[in-house]
Amino acid sequence: MTGVSDGESVSLDLLKMKMAEFAKERDWDRFHSPRNLLLALVGEVGELSEIFQWKGEVPKGLPDWKEEEKVHLGEELSDVLLYLVRLSDICGIDLGKAAMRKVELNAIKYPVGMCKGSSKKHNNNNSNSNNGTEK
Amino acid sequence: MTGVSDGESVSLDLLKMKMAEFAKERDWDRFHSPRNLLLALVGEVGELSEIFQWKGEVPKGLPDWKEEEKVHLGEELSDVLLYLVRLSDICGIDLGKAAMRKVELNAIKYPVGMCKGSSKKHNNNNSNSNNGTEK
Amino acid sequence: MTGVSDGESVSLDLLKMKMAEFAKERDWDRFHSPRNLLLALVGEVGELSEIFQWKGEVPKGLPDWKEEEKVHLGEELSDVLLYLVRLSDICGIDLGKAAMRKVELNAIKYPVGMCKGSSKKHNNNNSNSNNGTEK
Amino acid sequence: MTGVSDGESVSLDLLKMKMAEFAKERDWDRFHSPRNLLLALVGEVGELSEIFQWKGEVPKGLPDWKEEEKVHLGEELSDVLLYLVRLSDICGIDLGKAAMRKVELNAIKYPVGMCKGSSKKHNNNNSNSNNGTEK
Repeated sequence: MTGVSDGESVSLDLLKMKMAEFAKERDWDRFHSPRNLLLALVGEVGELSEIFQWKGEVPKGLPDWKEEEKVHLGEELSDVLLYLVRLSDICGIDLGKAAMRKVELNAIKYPVGMCKGSSKKHNNNNSNSNNGTEK
Repeated sequence: MTGVSDGESVSLDLLKMKMAEFAKERDWDRFHSPRNLLLALVGEVGELSEIFQWKGEVPKGLPDWKEEEKVHLGEELSDVLLYLVRLSDICGIDLGKAAMRKVELNAIKYPVGMCKGSSKKHNNNNSNSNNGTEK
Repeated sequence: MTGVSDGESVSLDLLKMKMAEFAKERDWDRFHSPRNLLLALVGEVGELSEIFQWKGEVPKGLPDWKEEEKVHLGEELSDVLLYLVRLSDICGIDLGKAAMRKVELNAIKYPVGMCKGSSKKHNNNNSNSNNGTEK
Repeated sequence: MTGVSDGESVSLDLLKMKMAEFAKERDWDRFHSPRNLLLALVGEVGELSEIFQWKGEVPKGLPDWKEEEKVHLGEELSDVLLYLVRLSDICGIDLGKAAMRKVELNAIKYPVGMCKGSSKKHNNNNSNSNNGTEK
């Protein structure tokens, strides 16, 4: 029903196609301008943040979370992803290709030899730094 | 070099694997806690917003943007995606599966027959509404 | 009832005091850590964005908005402000003082003579620029 | 020089006036549409998040932060505030008044007797809940 057999990996192109189809069938294309989609994305990031907001630090794997909380989290992560995929499509950006290129750029920017053991990126608090983002 | 032949679609699992490898090689796993990654994601959404902030409404396909602006946009969209993929992985969420499930839930929530032509979702401004998000 | 007579201007210190009192009375101080409050702020920014997300460009003064929509907008703007005030307080930052200082820094950074008529800040799309923010 | 004597509390109206003057002098009013300002605000929230992103949980008062880090934090908090004040003004919302009203609404929503000792708001993870926001 999802068009993906079990165990098969979901591609960004498949999601792009699904979103385009979804909007077309409902005649929603006219609402899907770049800045509308961007603000919708920000809205979803807000909902994602709300899940984590009162929890203090949370361990990896979320060992203490109830199943329904994890399902909810999966939905909010998905909402962000779906708007991101749609925004990229509407802007004419090939998101998969751009992401693979960005991974390579990051590898050049943060060479293993120089970063390992150190953690300069993460400890650098200088306000003129790149703020610790991988870019 | 990217592990993806031309024309092949990039999967979320591939990006997940690339991000895990990247962090492991640099000994960055210890920085990648759920809330650290979430805040890094918010930071990237901020950079994405900065690209659009002074432009007013922008037409689909970005016909008037310079090539370098589009490349920059692709990088910021990618940064959001990569942190989203990493956050999902660290939380133990299968993002691709969750996204496909969300698409199906949205299809149930917004049946074609009832939504087409109307645009209730997008025009509903009631503060108690679902705020127009696909969820 | 608000502690502010009509026509009197609301100060950041008054809001800070109100928020501190509010949390203390409910024994909520222990939830108000810096990163909890920051994520709560991000959540409210998401709700603010949802109000604008499907509207396309919106004229100043919101001439076509219903009264209830404006009230809702005022509430979301306030939620962002209240968490911002609380976050600043918990971090030991004097927000009013910092904001006045920032206005002065901006005035130095963007001298009237050089910016007027031009709009370099707002048109500069170079990815290495300061992204058009006043800082 | 700031128009505020030492010890005097900074009001939202003063900041509003400063921002309006600032934009007018530079002929920037035309860039200050509601959605432009909203996206600029999101950009600043991103920069604020970047300050906290790799730090793990951070104690109140930021005892271990260097002075320059605190100054930087004050600047990013201010940027968010200034755009929030400006956005409110451009939308015709009296932010101070709205915030005082919101504090009162919150007091009704979360009565001291029922909330004290409990922490229902902060522990409620139900996806249909109000997500722990004060509204």
